[in-house]
Amino acid sequence: MLAVVFRSAVTKYKGLRLPSQTVARAMSSSGGATPPYTTLAISRPTESITHVELHRPEKRNAMNSAFWSEMVTCFNELSEDAQCRVVVVSGAGKLFTAGIDLMDMMNSVLQPEGDDTARISWGIKKKIKKLQETFSVIEKCPKPVVVAIHGACVGAGVDMITACDIRLCTQDAWFQVKEVDIGLAADVGTLQRLPKVIGSQSLVNELALTARKMYADEAKSSGLVSRVFADKEAMMAGALEIAGEIAGRSPVAVQGTKINLIYARNHSVADGLDYIATWNMSMLQTEDLMKSAQAALEKKSPKTKTYSKL
Amino acid sequence: MLAVVFRSAVTKYKGLRLPSQTVARAMSSSGGATPPYTTLAISRPTESITHVELHRPEKRNAMNSAFWSEMVTCFNELSEDAQCRVVVVSGAGKLFTAGIDLMDMMNSVLQPEGDDTARISWGIKKKIKKLQETFSVIEKCPKPVVVAIHGACVGAGVDMITACDIRLCTQDAWFQVKEVDIGLAADVGTLQRLPKVIGSQSLVNELALTARKMYADEAKSSGLVSRVFADKEAMMAGALEIAGEIAGRSPVAVQGTKINLIYARNHSVADGLDYIATWNMSMLQTEDLMKSAQAALEKKSPKTKTYSKL
Amino acid sequence: MLAVVFRSAVTKYKGLRLPSQTVARAMSSSGGATPPYTTLAISRPTESITHVELHRPEKRNAMNSAFWSEMVTCFNELSEDAQCRVVVVSGAGKLFTAGIDLMDMMNSVLQPEGDDTARISWGIKKKIKKLQETFSVIEKCPKPVVVAIHGACVGAGVDMITACDIRLCTQDAWFQVKEVDIGLAADVGTLQRLPKVIGSQSLVNELALTARKMYADEAKSSGLVSRVFADKEAMMAGALEIAGEIAGRSPVAVQGTKINLIYARNHSVADGLDYIATWNMSMLQTEDLMKSAQAALEKKSPKTKTYSKL
Amino acid sequence: MLAVVFRSAVTKYKGLRLPSQTVARAMSSSGGATPPYTTLAISRPTESITHVELHRPEKRNAMNSAFWSEMVTCFNELSEDAQCRVVVVSGAGKLFTAGIDLMDMMNSVLQPEGDDTARISWGIKKKIKKLQETFSVIEKCPKPVVVAIHGACVGAGVDMITACDIRLCTQDAWFQVKEVDIGLAADVGTLQRLPKVIGSQSLVNELALTARKMYADEAKSSGLVSRVFADKEAMMAGALEIAGEIAGRSPVAVQGTKINLIYARNHSVADGLDYIATWNMSMLQTEDLMKSAQAALEKKSPKTKTYSKL
Amino acid sequence: MLAVVFRSAVTKYKGLRLPSQTVARAMSSSGGATPPYTTLAISRPTESITHVELHRPEKRNAMNSAFWSEMVTCFNELSEDAQCRVVVVSGAGKLFTAGIDLMDMMNSVLQPEGDDTARISWGIKKKIKKLQETFSVIEKCPKPVVVAIHGACVGAGVDMITACDIRLCTQDAWFQVKEVDIGLAADVGTLQRLPKVIGSQSLVNELALTARKMYADEAKSSGLVSRVFADKEAMMAGALEIAGEIAGRSPVAVQGTKINLIYARNHSVADGLDYIATWNMSMLQTEDLMKSAQAALEKKSPKTKTYSKL
Amino acid sequence: MLAVVFRSAVTKYKGLRLPSQTVARAMSSSGGATPPYTTLAISRPTESITHVELHRPEKRNAMNSAFWSEMVTCFNELSEDAQCRVVVVSGAGKLFTAGIDLMDMMNSVLQPEGDDTARISWGIKKKIKKLQETFSVIEKCPKPVVVAIHGACVGAGVDMITACDIRLCTQDAWFQVKEVDIGLAADVGTLQRLPKVIGSQSLVNELALTARKMYADEAKSSGLVSRVFADKEAMMAGALEIAGEIAGRSPVAVQGTKINLIYARNHSVADGLDYIATWNMSMLQTEDLMKSAQAALEKKSPKTKTYSKL
Repeated sequence: MLAVVFRSAVTKYKGLRLPSQTVARAMSSSGGATPPYTTLAISRPTESITHVELHRPEKRNAMNSAFWSEMVTCFNELSEDAQCRVVVVSGAGKLFTAGIDLMDMMNSVLQPEGDDTARISWGIKKKIKKLQETFSVIEKCPKPVVVAIHGACVGAGVDMITACDIRLCTQDAWFQVKEVDIGLAADVGTLQRLPKVIGSQSLVNELALTARKMYADEAKSSGLVSRVFADKEAMMAGALEIAGEIAGRSPVAVQGTKINLIYARNHSVADGLDYIATWNMSMLQTEDLMKSAQAALEKKSPKTKTYSKL
Repeated sequence: MLAVVFRSAVTKYKGLRLPSQTVARAMSSSGGATPPYTTLAISRPTESITHVELHRPEKRNAMNSAFWSEMVTCFNELSEDAQCRVVVVSGAGKLFTAGIDLMDMMNSVLQPEGDDTARISWGIKKKIKKLQETFSVIEKCPKPVVVAIHGACVGAGVDMITACDIRLCTQDAWFQVKEVDIGLAADVGTLQRLPKVIGSQSLVNELALTARKMYADEAKSSGLVSRVFADKEAMMAGALEIAGEIAGRSPVAVQGTKINLIYARNHSVADGLDYIATWNMSMLQTEDLMKSAQAALEKKSPKTKTYSKL
Repeated sequence: MLAVVFRSAVTKYKGLRLPSQTVARAMSSSGGATPPYTTLAISRPTESITHVELHRPEKRNAMNSAFWSEMVTCFNELSEDAQCRVVVVSGAGKLFTAGIDLMDMMNSVLQPEGDDTARISWGIKKKIKKLQETFSVIEKCPKPVVVAIHGACVGAGVDMITACDIRLCTQDAWFQVKEVDIGLAADVGTLQRLPKVIGSQSLVNELALTARKMYADEAKSSGLVSRVFADKEAMMAGALEIAGEIAGRSPVAVQGTKINLIYARNHSVADGLDYIATWNMSMLQTEDLMKSAQAALEKKSPKTKTYSKL
Repeated sequence: MLAVVFRSAVTKYKGLRLPSQTVARAMSSSGGATPPYTTLAISRPTESITHVELHRPEKRNAMNSAFWSEMVTCFNELSEDAQCRVVVVSGAGKLFTAGIDLMDMMNSVLQPEGDDTARISWGIKKKIKKLQETFSVIEKCPKPVVVAIHGACVGAGVDMITACDIRLCTQDAWFQVKEVDIGLAADVGTLQRLPKVIGSQSLVNELALTARKMYADEAKSSGLVSRVFADKEAMMAGALEIAGEIAGRSPVAVQGTKINLIYARNHSVADGLDYIATWNMSMLQTEDLMKSAQAALEKKSPKTKTYSKL
Repeated sequence: MLAVVFRSAVTKYKGLRLPSQTVARAMSSSGGATPPYTTLAISRPTESITHVELHRPEKRNAMNSAFWSEMVTCFNELSEDAQCRVVVVSGAGKLFTAGIDLMDMMNSVLQPEGDDTARISWGIKKKIKKLQETFSVIEKCPKPVVVAIHGACVGAGVDMITACDIRLCTQDAWFQVKEVDIGLAADVGTLQRLPKVIGSQSLVNELALTARKMYADEAKSSGLVSRVFADKEAMMAGALEIAGEIAGRSPVAVQGTKINLIYARNHSVADGLDYIATWNMSMLQTEDLMKSAQAALEKKSPKTKTYSKL
Repeated sequence: MLAVVFRSAVTKYKGLRLPSQTVARAMSSSGGATPPYTTLAISRPTESITHVELHRPEKRNAMNSAFWSEMVTCFNELSEDAQCRVVVVSGAGKLFTAGIDLMDMMNSVLQPEGDDTARISWGIKKKIKKLQETFSVIEKCPKPVVVAIHGACVGAGVDMITACDIRLCTQDAWFQVKEVDIGLAADVGTLQRLPKVIGSQSLVNELALTARKMYADEAKSSGLVSRVFADKEAMMAGALEIAGEIAGRSPVAVQGTKINLIYARNHSVADGLDYIATWNMSMLQTEDLMKSAQAALEKKSPKTKTYSKL
């Protein structure tokens, strides 16, 4: 959350101009955003898979103030939408996302207010918490979220993908924990989730402290992504295939798995074991278990069965 | 823990039959299980190494109700047995384990009871907690447990190996977090321990949500296993070598190390440091320290010394 | 913390002699230690980078009693020194460090005292806590610490490097969690931090329980180090380059990043998010943010700006 | 959260009728509820004090489905309303609240849905979490909440008051943890907060397990309330006086105090100390501090100064 | 856990003799212990209430080695016994308990073993953990435990009663945290549970550090007990009345309440709220809820209904 | 920590003058402070009891910058001083302490520094942490600290006494959580420790939010103090008596008790039980245990024995 204090800054550095070359050439896909959204294009590749596409390609999917609130609306709806069993997130155009849209944020929501430093600080905290919610809704959504990254994933983009469940990328993708370059400690998720997402703490620290780019191979070997694809087309096919595997299985099993994996990350093993025992005392009483077991005994895929909505 | 609710299910799906091909061909090793065990074969390759072999090869070492209680008896005894300093676990026959034995579990321990949903749930929780104990005893046993996996390790097999300390496998091994295929969230350890066992959270999620197989190479690169061997023979030799390295060292040092590693996993660094300082205020007062230091100064292996039982 | 009990041991094993070959040939670099330090050489490759060199090359940088206290003095000063923005740690001579200096520790600080076992234990705990502090100061220092390891890093050396932020090594480096060979559970940091530093728990356990050496390639693939260099010269150049990247950025951003990464390691994601929101409510009110953002908009490196001391 | 399962129950016990005497005589205060609320009357005794009155006196302020959502709206608004610096909660009519409105809840929101037990359970959890939010908003509101209880406070009423900051009551008040009488473990706050609110765990357990009434004297001696007043009039005067003391002080100090007290309850002392140090690094930079200190040096009340909105 | 080290001590202080006056006069109640127990008398005042009486009156109910294991057997059985819905614990004879039976413990279980200090320490820890289990079983038993104390409750007696749910005493009762008088920090529960059981930390510290007696009035005002009775007869009647209130209510509600109260004590409010929501997603699906609600609507006690076993 | 920002404030409110009447009349006791201390008088009523007297009576023992550092020196020394087994803290002159010395703090240590808000904030946090240490040393000191309060205990005085172990007061004593009156949330301990020190959360909140005075009777009934005395003379006699009880007992038992009580406050019961079992595996191996037990068997006080230094 970077720019609450830009107002005075703007005054101070009044000569400052955004170089024209930062206005990326339009590279919008045919569709455009899906109303009521202006930054997201929502589609349903299959009945139970929802595709959420970051869709401001002409702005390199930079996250403007509309985006920060549309994500919350979108994922809260998906959480309640029983048809949706898995979500795929990707970016339209030449790259996944350039991160926060500095200019837009400066001109809209980020207006520091308050009569003294304490009051300004109070307002800043409220805004940070609101921005954090934009990515925490991904984690709170019980449906698994597969994110497919191509081109570049910068700054707040990394905050976002660490809140997703499964990460895929193309061979040409690169990642950059950019915040230190803007003069702040990343505060919408990267510093909190990245150390729990990949196994090398030295690498986490290096990325966060130097803002160096990490390319697909290192993203794979470090475990940030679990698969690398040759290009975007192959990746999207792969993402839909994984999503299809998940969507075809029991939603009781799938969503219970996501919730318990996140619970386990934040608790001791003993607490985690007690929690899932409490969880499953009801969840095992599902028809899905019998249907799935029957499929297993018949040597068929669990996807051959139909499971009720959850 | 899957099948508590099978009773009504069995009634409902009464035509359901187990396909004959699921009855695996007998592939028992010469020995057979070691009385009083019917599913485990226990041996002593050396005085201080205990080998626990899953031993229902004709059933692909599927975990039946006998297995779930025999493991508890076995590891509780090993915990108390001062001669035993390290445990090696492996599977007899063609593969490590096919996971839970659905048919057996249906016909024996898994009978839901209770006059209403709450009471049935209560009973289910008790059974889950009991099954969890089957693998938690491995962790509570202060002696290190090396597990050697060949062929396949499916479902509850993964729950089990994540509770072991050191994981080895053969080149032909594969792993499958199977529970989502049976319609449930894994509740005997995988979801709680796997995220703390390997570094790529994206991979953990993908495995748990899609039930896809993971082969030896990915198991190695992701850190699930620390070594891969060409075949079972080489792996067992390697397992015994590692076990020998451990068994030859001071049991005060070895068992204190295991206990503190597990403690550290569940606590903050500050808590972990305080705990081991409290632990070592007595444990440093061991003869083993002088014996080991002497060996070090003599440029000999600590295994050249003899350490008292613990 | 190993040798508190050596006093009686020395009496018991009175014939014991340190083999002459353990006295390594002198391989001191030209400079020698920097007064008032006798085991550390401190220099400033640039104004804002401090180089702390373990400097007892003739003793393979073994950690004697002077070292344990000099490190505390040194890092407490660096914490307060506003000029210093990043620290590089390396070892003089043929290897990084041979770990604790057994003979020295026996002859100096490690004298168990107390009229009964409880009182001796009490004294041991105090000494362990003091030794732990030697490495915890690295973590408490808000300036990032890059450690560059060549040759060997043994025993307490591993405890030390796990408390650093970024780990680099040469192709000829190897690492050894040595404590189990000396008859004790490692108590100055390895068992607490290593499981949070690398992603493979099986590997952590194997290293700690068998004391086997791990070479550079495995250190890289397991994530213990984030980069491997051909030789020491290349590594030192690389370390300084990384340090330069960090030193040139906003110290508000850099040090806030380190503090929040360590906080996140020890807390749940929810706690971590709340903490950084509280942290940044003041830290975003820095001029560095505007300066850095301006550099970004001008497509320049943030290093082209000058940031006030912190 | 009790009645999700009433639907089938209603069918089963179809002869069941609500005894007419449970329909309490109308005892509404003059005003009535304040639109848009139907169960709450909101007023401003002074500019900075908001009075939230439970206002269904003819139903003994029983909590119907409207109440559960109106509370959330109300407190979320108060959280954002800079004029409001403290909240007083009380009940209109003869008593504070009779707790949940069973009949209303049965007829409206509580309709269990789902094709099997797991799906019904899933829906129940969502509803419980929503009901929990009704009282958690009191805790999340940074403005202190003083609750004034007269007559009776039953069931969900106790859940509610344990989420308030300061508890007062009349001499004729009594309290009853009623849930066990309805066949459930209290799940909207009492079991979680009561043990942290009063000091005698034996008393907490007795109240929760036997549903016995506790009268004003025991409420005072046990610390549930901090003051007892002769009658409602005296209590309301007292509540407003306390509220006035709070409202007249620096909102930076007051709201920071509430937030840190709640933080401290859920964390260790060390974590709490670090949190407030991080909090106050900005909050001490308030004009209020100088204004308040000046008042102190002038031997005047801090209320003689005016503090900016927060 | 005090006496592991008595063996050598006994040798050292060989002249030491137990003064004859410590052998209390026999004051056994008519019945005697209930086989297979030698230290406990078990009875059933009503079908669903179990009375566990400490029954070595001639030894002032001192806790000998038989007691420490019989308690575990007894409470594990009560946990499984569906008829038992509440437990009352009291002491036979002139007082509740004199605490640990020093002489018996010296002559039986407490034999330190091990070749060096570390190994002796290892054995001590195992014994302490076993003794801790004797009282932790009370807490793990899901049925509420009411303890009724008369005369004296000394040392391990205080450890025991802090693990019970509801504490009652007679006017002549006194309590003494005795361990500091024997030269040890209390290690079977008092130091861990007492601070969470009563609200005055100053009092907890004073009692634990000075071993002074606390009488009934202070026990009541501090919240250690929730009720004081004139004499033992009145107290036992009161205990049975409370037990009757509990036993007559829904066991689903009662046992869920106990489990969640204990969970809440050890977790944050947020964790506690999530846990009970997970718990109740199945537990609300009980017939008891409808039965209890019907009784409530009929203005009858929930005890007028019959609830199935749990 | 209040006054970091006074510097600019002083400029702003330049007319501000400290009213002469706040300069309390000298009421120094005969002795004066004990060199090298200027604010503390240290004495040894008995060989093993240290009396630390706040000693600026002419300034109502207000805490100036000297005090904040002298306390750290003093308690760190007492922690190491084996002769000292218990500490008594009291105040010289007419009252215990008026809290922080605003004027002194303004003129000395509290000089905010930094080029922007972030840097000023950074400095403030460092200063708060340093001030927190002044009282945390009391808690870290393993010897029990008895505090005896007369007259008034205001502001930082409350922060201080909540870090002590046993609290006593005179009938004329009163307590005031003063910080909210100065415009800040208390940040050197009160908000963190008071909720864990007394049982009524409503009272804690009321005191902290309104800054009202609490008198001796309420301090006693709420559990803030465990005893009230008629006057200072009686209290000091009582304090010394309690201190004598503690000092005469085994220091192994006494200090182990303090450490484990503080540990238990910050951890779950399960963690607390494991910690003390680890602690006592060495501490039970003390001669004190046998000496104390012998005294017990001889029906003598443990104080009749002599225990070695710790």
